[in-house]
Amino acid sequence: MHVEHIGIAVKNCQDANQLFEKLLGVEPYKAEKVESEAVNTSFFSVGNTKIELLEATAEHSAIAKFIEKKGEGIHHIAFEVEDIHAEMERLRSQGFQLLNEAPKRGADNKLVCFVHPKTANGVLVELCQEIRE
Amino acid sequence: MHVEHIGIAVKNCQDANQLFEKLLGVEPYKAEKVESEAVNTSFFSVGNTKIELLEATAEHSAIAKFIEKKGEGIHHIAFEVEDIHAEMERLRSQGFQLLNEAPKRGADNKLVCFVHPKTANGVLVELCQEIRE
Repeated sequence: MHVEHIGIAVKNCQDANQLFEKLLGVEPYKAEKVESEAVNTSFFSVGNTKIELLEATAEHSAIAKFIEKKGEGIHHIAFEVEDIHAEMERLRSQGFQLLNEAPKRGADNKLVCFVHPKTANGVLVELCQEIRE
Repeated sequence: MHVEHIGIAVKNCQDANQLFEKLLGVEPYKAEKVESEAVNTSFFSVGNTKIELLEATAEHSAIAKFIEKKGEGIHHIAFEVEDIHAEMERLRSQGFQLLNEAPKRGADNKLVCFVHPKTANGVLVELCQEIRE
């Protein structure tokens, strides 16, 4: 398990790209729209971790709701795992509540699953696993 | 620059240690009290990043205020830099507001400096540099 990326909720990806470019000293290497989550994303590489900026594209997007409630800021931590199904099973058996029953397709060619923050000290945890075609 | 650790504000370090031990599948490798910040911390190693749990030891602690306002959750992202003085100067010149004028001593044998979240999309950013004795 390692920290694959840190997700940050932003109001406007284009503005935030400029800001994080100054902060991190690198340009975003990728932008991707994720229809299923109603978000635009952009990615920065920092060491062997990524920073993912997330902008809502619709009012029902979880990112829109997050910003309305808490303002812009750190949204989630994503841990890369070898076998997402096994890890989901392990966490369920340890009492963690998962937000999706089965892994779903996320950004960046990953299968993803989220752990409910109320069972993880207020932290929205994402598990992700590279999709092997 | 790389993500050195992610700081998480918790109400009770002992309880949170148990929870994160289950979540991450590893035990905390260190606990440290940081008097200057009025916090107890504990550290988990995940890949080449650390998760730092932070519990307030006094009401005036920034962690106590954070939890009162936002609840438990992700508190900050810390980026390791080679030369914290140079990096502070670079960020200042780019328009970022720093929360301390000079680096101060943080947990884990580091010099640290924080960037004001209002100038960084709501993200509390820590710069840190290993203290070389």
